[in-house]
This record gives sequence, C-alpha cells and structure tokens, in this order.
Amino acid sequence: MKNSMEKIISLSKRRGFIFQSSEIYGGVEALWDYGPLGSLLKNNIKNEWLKRFAQTRDDIVLIDSACLMHSNVWKASGHLEHFTDPLVECKGCHSRFRADHMADGRFVGEGKAKIKNQCPQCGGKNFTSPKQFNLMFKTFLGPVEDEVHITYLRPETAQSMFTNFEIIQESMRLKIPFGIAQIGRCFRNEITTGNFTFRSREFDIAEIEYFVKPGDDEKWFDFWVGEWEKFFLDLGLKKENLRRYEHPKEALSHYSKRTIDIEYKFPFGWSELAGIANRTDYDLKRHSEYSRQDLRYYDEEEKKKYYPYVIEPTVGIERIVLALLCDAYTEIEGGRTKTTKATKEMEVLLKLDKKTAPIKVAVLPLVRNKPELIKKAKEVYQLLKPHFVCQYDELGSIGRRYRRGDEIGVLYGVTIDFETLKNDDVTLRWRDSMEQIRVDIKNLPEMLKKLLSDEIEFNKTGRLLKVSSK
Amino acid sequence: MKNSMEKIISLSKRRGFIFQSSEIYGGVEALWDYGPLGSLLKNNIKNEWLKRFAQTRDDIVLIDSACLMHSNVWKASGHLEHFTDPLVECKGCHSRFRADHMADGRFVGEGKAKIKNQCPQCGGKNFTSPKQFNLMFKTFLGPVEDEVHITYLRPETAQSMFTNFEIIQESMRLKIPFGIAQIGRCFRNEITTGNFTFRSREFDIAEIEYFVKPGDDEKWFDFWVGEWEKFFLDLGLKKENLRRYEHPKEALSHYSKRTIDIEYKFPFGWSELAGIANRTDYDLKRHSEYSRQDLRYYDEEEKKKYYPYVIEPTVGIERIVLALLCDAYTEIEGGRTKTTKATKEMEVLLKLDKKTAPIKVAVLPLVRNKPELIKKAKEVYQLLKPHFVCQYDELGSIGRRYRRGDEIGVLYGVTIDFETLKNDDVTLRWRDSMEQIRVDIKNLPEMLKKLLSDEIEFNKTGRLLKVSSK
Repeated sequence: MKNSMEKIISLSKRRGFIFQSSEIYGGVEALWDYGPLGSLLKNNIKNEWLKRFAQTRDDIVLIDSACLMHSNVWKASGHLEHFTDPLVECKGCHSRFRADHMADGRFVGEGKAKIKNQCPQCGGKNFTSPKQFNLMFKTFLGPVEDEVHITYLRPETAQSMFTNFEIIQESMRLKIPFGIAQIGRCFRNEITTGNFTFRSREFDIAEIEYFVKPGDDEKWFDFWVGEWEKFFLDLGLKKENLRRYEHPKEALSHYSKRTIDIEYKFPFGWSELAGIANRTDYDLKRHSEYSRQDLRYYDEEEKKKYYPYVIEPTVGIERIVLALLCDAYTEIEGGRTKTTKATKEMEVLLKLDKKTAPIKVAVLPLVRNKPELIKKAKEVYQLLKPHFVCQYDELGSIGRRYRRGDEIGVLYGVTIDFETLKNDDVTLRWRDSMEQIRVDIKNLPEMLKKLLSDEIEFNKTGRLLKVSSK
Repeated sequence: MKNSMEKIISLSKRRGFIFQSSEIYGGVEALWDYGPLGSLLKNNIKNEWLKRFAQTRDDIVLIDSACLMHSNVWKASGHLEHFTDPLVECKGCHSRFRADHMADGRFVGEGKAKIKNQCPQCGGKNFTSPKQFNLMFKTFLGPVEDEVHITYLRPETAQSMFTNFEIIQESMRLKIPFGIAQIGRCFRNEITTGNFTFRSREFDIAEIEYFVKPGDDEKWFDFWVGEWEKFFLDLGLKKENLRRYEHPKEALSHYSKRTIDIEYKFPFGWSELAGIANRTDYDLKRHSEYSRQDLRYYDEEEKKKYYPYVIEPTVGIERIVLALLCDAYTEIEGGRTKTTKATKEMEVLLKLDKKTAPIKVAVLPLVRNKPELIKKAKEVYQLLKPHFVCQYDELGSIGRRYRRGDEIGVLYGVTIDFETLKNDDVTLRWRDSMEQIRVDIKNLPEMLKKLLSDEIEFNKTGRLLKVSSK
C-alpha cells in the first residue's frame, strides 16, 4: 500500500506532474507545485466541472472572488470560533500533532481525546492537553500590524457566495432554486500533514452554494449527492473505489444539518474526496445579523421573504488529481509486449480517461536518422497541434517511446514510418490495448476528434474501430 | 474622464461584472469579487492566453504553483529587501500614503521625494519622512508565530518558475530557448489604492519566464514585446489606446537590464497594462547562491554549462478586464433606434470582441404571453446552450431586452416571433449594427459557430452576411 503511494509520488516528480514547493530550499511541508502535466490535468478537471455545473445548467452562475475578505466575515461564519483543530505537543521533543489523529477512532470533542499513541518523532508518551488552534492563515491589511487590521486567508470559497448573495440574485434576476459556483484557491494552516498531496496547505476548491426553499432542502441534498457521485464516475474513477460516508449527528460541523462525504479508496485507506452539506439557513442568517443587512430572499410566488436553505456540494481539485493518479496507475509485471528481451521489465500504464489525460496524442517518427521521416513527422505534428494537446518525441527506440507515453497516460500514438512516405498514412496506436491501425494522414484529425469525443472507439479487445451509439 | 470611470464602475456592479469584496460589511479597499459576467470575461481572457502561449507553442510549458513558498525564496529573489514602497504619514490625521504618489513626477529614490501636495484626508501639509514598507503580505506556517515560521504570499508567480527551473527542464527534457508559463493568484499589500480595480491587493498574473542563451536576450526581448502587443490587439483593444513606455535606466527594478511597459489609455490616464523585463541571469544566480544548488543549464551543443538569461513578459488579468471594459464602453446619445419615443434615451453598448464577450447569444421570445412562442423559444435555447454561452430573456419589451443585452456586450440576439411558428426560422440580430436577418432554426447552430469563429461575418454596414477570406 505504502509502496504504491511511493511509486505515484516518484512518477509525479519524475514526469512533471507534482513537485514539492521550494524544493531547492529543502521544500515546504504540504505545499505543492503542479508541473507541466499536473497543471494540464488540473485544468482538464476544472474545465469538465465548469462545463457541467456552470455552463450547461440554467440555474447556476459562476463567480471568482478574492481570497482575502473583511475579518467580520470570519466572525459571522463561525470560522474564528470553530475552524480549529485540537493541538497537542509532545513534552519530550516539542513536536506538535492533531489530538484527533493521535487518539483512536474519530475525534468528537476536545475533552474526549485519549492520547494512546507514542510520539512519532521521539517515541515519548507525554503530551500537553489539547488546545484549539485556528487553521486560518492570519495576515494584516495595510502597513499597521494591529488587531484592527488582522484578516485571514479564506479556508473555503463559500463565504463570498453568501456575502454576495443579494447582489448576485438581483443583478442576474435569479429565482430560487439557484446556485452560485466557484473554483478558487483556499488556504489551511494544517498541523498534521502527509499522505503526499492529500492534506495540503493550499488547494483549489470547486464548490456550489445551492439556494433552495426551506422544506425542499432534503430533496436537493439527495440530488446533489447523486450529481457529485456521477461527476467522479464520469471523470473515470472506478465505482468500487468510491463510497458514501454519512457524518454522525454529534460530529457535524457547526453549520450543518446533514453531511455526506464521498470517500475514495486511496492506497492509505478510505478518505474524504468530496462532501455535500446541508448548511441550512445558518450562513445567510449569521451574515444578516453581523452585517445588519437583510439577506432574506423575496419569493414572488409566495409573496413573502425568507432565508433560503443552502445545499453545498464541494470538492478539492487536487484531491481529484490524487484519486485519478491512484486509480489510473497500473503496473504490468514483465511488460505487455512479449517480443523482445528488452521489454521483459515491469511496465507502467496510467489509464487516465480521455477527458483528463494531459496529453492526448504523441507524434513519433519511427527512427531518428532519416531526415524524410523527421520532416514528415513534424508536418503531422503541426497538423494535429492546433486541435489536440500533442507531444513530439524522437528520442530512443519506438518501443521505449510508447512506454514513456503509456506511463503518463498519452492516449494515442501516431507513428510515421517508411510506409508513410509511400502511402501518406500512419500507424495509430491506442494506449490501452496497444492495438494499431493504419490511418490516412488526411483523415487523422477527424478520426482523433471522433475518438476523443466518444463518437468512435477501439472495441473491448482493441481490434477494431467501431461507431458507438452516441 | 472621471465621469466615464464612474459609469463603468456602476455598470460593473449593476450587471454582475465586478463587486467590492465584503460589501455588506462596508467593503475592503482594493479587494474585488468578479461576478457572473466578470468571471466569464476573466475566464475568456485566460483561455485565449493559454491557447496562444501555452497550448499552441512547442517551446512553452505550463505550471500551477503554490502562493506560499519558503521564506528563503524571498531573500534570494530580493523581494524582502527591495519590494517596498516609500510610505509617508500625515502628521495631522495619521493617514498613510505612498511618497511617490504624493510627489510630482516619477519617484526615483527615497531621498528625492518632495512632498508638495496636501493630505487628501485632512488637507495638512506635514508628513513624516518616507519609510520603506514591504508590500508582501506576511503570515506564519504552522502554529508558532515566530521569525522562523514567517512566510509571505507571493507578489508575482515568477519565483516558482525559477525554483522549479531544473526539475522542469529535466523532467520535460527541454532545450533552450524555452519558456515556463503560469497564471495564478498574487497578493500585494498596496498602500495607495483607487482607480477602481487598477491597483488591487489581489489579482491573477499571467506570465512567462523565457530562458535564452546569454547574448540572445536582446533579440528575444524585442520578440516578446511584439508578441505581447499583438495579444492585446487581438483581444480587441484599440491600437490608439496602447503605447510603449521604456523605463529609464535609473528607475529599473533591481533585477532588470531593460523593461518596457505596455500602457493603456485608461480614463484616468496612460497607465501600465503589462510589462516585459529582461531579468538577465539575476534570479537563477541568486537562487543557486542561496540554495547552494547548481541551477546552470548544460548546453549540449556548446558542451558547457551557463546561467540562461530570462525574458519575462507579464500581465495582470484584471488589468486586461478593466482595459477591455473601458475600451468597449460606448454611449449613444438619443439611442440607436429612432422609431419610438421610449428609445430616445441614452443607450449603452459594450463592444466586447467575440473572443471575450461573456455571453454570446440571447434567446428572446417576441412576447411573453403566447405559450407557443415561449415553448419554441425554450427549444431554441436548449438547442444552442450546449454550444454557446447563452441567456434566455423574456422580461420586458423586445427593444428593452435588446438594449439590456447591448449593455453587457451580448453579440447576437435570436428572436422567436409569429413567423417562427409558420416557417421554423428566427431573427438573428447583430449587436454592433442592429441589422437583422432571417435564419432557419436548423442552420442556426452552424451559422453562429461560423460567425463566432470569424468564418463569416456581418459586413461593415451590417447589411449582409459574407464569407471572409479566413
């Protein structure tokens, strides 16, 4: 298990998916930079999310708000009071840990933490009693560092959807039920980190605040749990690696009436991938109280004002990245190609879905030392590049280049060989079956477009192309 | 001038482009939230930039890095020492201002500031002498607020391209010249703010660090100045509103050999929209020195190691948004439609380009009280929505709805009228000429696609459709 995580970390670093921030300075714990392939993967996920939830739905509008907000926002939201973790310190070595991570089972309150474990740093068993530590990063607006100028980096994007609720509803003339969606950077000063990018101090959250009539909230809660699950399945995550976890009543967040996590079976165990919360009218009521504005919604049909209930589906983009990498990572002992000795090693295949794979097509001249082949290959590359994310690779044997592409999930390999110079056709190889067909260059962009949009596909054995029913 | 700025601010707020952050709490100066239309506009700009500079170029890779970095990064980069503004305080009312903004002309050093103006708050003329104030937001990593745990929010994305230079070059097997590109959130604790979003404390920077052989730097500098200008022209900014400003030698940043700003003629005067700097080998050398890593590049052709020079084209996405709004905002005294009294008022037209306009198509039933029309209009809306960002609008007279669309830059209006029910065709109206043609519903998606991709267009007088030479 741990082994498999280490392999994914190594692949991520070696092939440009994920690097530790400031690594040349020894790195910073729980801060990560997404490299060329990782940033494409992140963008693919974001674009799928935006298309599905913001662009093609009539009832959802997008916003993009600042990470810094007025400090009263965090008083009203309850984050200053409640967004804390219980912190314990080892009396031996002064290392700090989350009490709930040290105790057995799920932590349900400060008093109940029983520190049974040893200190992972020094092995000591003496800890201070747990103190609440606020997880928001603090900073100061303007040049004066006093209480008045303190503010915090947002730990979630939600609050700006509440503070802007009225102006958005009015300027866009929206009627309930409607949602406000956002993808944006969030910050949490985590005490215990680890498991690669799982618990990071910076991440992009994609979330929707969906405003409904009180009484309709339970129906919409169920709806959004379903929509969220479908999204992860459509991104290609395996059904057996997803499950629901319902938070017990006594462990709900201060604002929540009901919360369901969607958990993913990571190599380190079932852990939260996403969540859906019924935030009730908590936030709009609190912001009305603290800002002395009336944030109630006027329902034209019912001719009355009320505080809408809010259903919040939320997910961290980087958690999706990690789940996709874990889900897609496949090792093939002895390799898939049995013909030569050189390939008898272990091969890695990253079976990312068409929608998320960072690079769709590799263009490969069969050999490097034939100028006509190189020239032709570069022409094909220029033909495809405006339409697909492509890479051109001429270094090493063709088998080695296929494997290099398989390892990062390149979907299709286009090989330019000596036949190409005669017939103006190429070999098109599919990553998952390694099956190859000949395609005329003039038909190549259209065929790749159809393959990538699921209009046609290699069949299950990979032997034929067929037109699907879509 | 000021008047025109106020109108743009008012439109931005009224129609969902830009809101002040935390407005219900009185707002926070220089922090802005981008509403439904503003966030679409931002995304359109980002996507154009990514397509042009990251996707279709072979020599540039993308990254997406953390905003928080190791504090040594800011020592090495020179930001801790140099990223400061001279701060003066009015002795009368204790308001703080940037000394260079109070002095006449451009400020070129701490000692030379002459505070000639009055305090804008209280009219006083007594100021403290200027002190250097660092513009980076400070925070603490982990629960202990001491010197060791201080870090800063990045004021530019550039540094992570330098700290990751080696791992990116190696993992992606890149050869000089090549670039690393990034769009990401940055933070600056500005003292003097104002001019709407122009000087904000949070913004998204799009920048490229382009690594070249020393000696080739001046050639590439010129190249990138040209590319940057072309990008702004292609986004639709008027040529006469753009100019170059070359920084005088004595005012260059600590890392720069040469800097050219691209200035835009905002209503408040010519001001920086974007910049191109020749950062030389300053950053890679400094990071090598501070991290004790060898960040030199091994040139296989020349068989030697050297520090590449860096050309940095950079632009703030929100500055582009502001320039586009100013450029596109057009008032027509007395209105464009002369037929009825009701339209004799002033009309506003937001002439955003096809690529950037947040909403491409409005679907409008001629009247609201005919169920067949509404039904048909909703069918047309469903037909178009998967392909274009559309809105459906049935409230108010058709003239009023056209004007409501014009004001936010909706490119095409599709009107469903009584003819539609007979002939299955609609009226297609172009925003800029108000010319209308009839189009069969079955041809509508294809025609809109061609119009939006410049394959066909309304001619200059707007009377005909023609196929362009593209």
